[in-house]
Amino acid sequence: MSAGEQVSWTEALEQLPFNSDGLLPAIAQQYDSGEVLMMAWMNREALAETLSKGRVCYWSRSRQKLWRKGESSGQVQILQALLLDCDGDTILLKVDQTGPACHTGRRSCFYNLVTTDSIQVLNNPIINPDELYGG
Amino acid sequence: MSAGEQVSWTEALEQLPFNSDGLLPAIAQQYDSGEVLMMAWMNREALAETLSKGRVCYWSRSRQKLWRKGESSGQVQILQALLLDCDGDTILLKVDQTGPACHTGRRSCFYNLVTTDSIQVLNNPIINPDELYGG
Repeated sequence: MSAGEQVSWTEALEQLPFNSDGLLPAIAQQYDSGEVLMMAWMNREALAETLSKGRVCYWSRSRQKLWRKGESSGQVQILQALLLDCDGDTILLKVDQTGPACHTGRRSCFYNLVTTDSIQVLNNPIINPDELYGG
Repeated sequence: MSAGEQVSWTEALEQLPFNSDGLLPAIAQQYDSGEVLMMAWMNREALAETLSKGRVCYWSRSRQKLWRKGESSGQVQILQALLLDCDGDTILLKVDQTGPACHTGRRSCFYNLVTTDSIQVLNNPIINPDELYGG
């Protein structure tokens, strides 16, 4: 398809290659700074809710339930744009992240710099995680 | 750990939670513009080669072999930094991407904008894919 062409989302959704667990990976990026904040997973229901409510909802693989980002911590993600890749098997969420995206209290989950001989922590938390989760 | 603390990469690598296929998802981001280019997968060997050579190598799930990005198309990714997330289960590659990252000839794979009622193509290829793969 060429730029500007569009198809019905209801039809496209039927064709999406959810994995054997019914999930697609979703990358969250701060919409204005471009910082990559985290990656999590969405099932069909999380994807539908995120689009309809404009607030990001994932599927928690560990808890096996919908995970409305920020429901415990208050650090929500407001959706600015939702993109799918060429194969339709990865989601990119452009979001406005309140405070830290990471459960450690860091802005981004990607804070470990790897080289051939070491792995080094780049950032400290911007909020104590005890404050985020009621300590 | 606090900012600046580091551990041996060899030891950390032993603990990484590769999935049941021995893979971790890897997000590629253009290091200067912040554009998210693509997501693919790495096994232990692809990760080691990427770090040692400074040129990004993935694991192709469809071809079941190492995929040295650009080996067919010439559109390579030079590694600027490799980061791991808080859980160690997702890789963020900051790269310098030659030309298009996407096999469709587009700069980024994320060119489909989804709304509650449509999915729309945002960009045209910057290079005809026939030129990338010998047509």
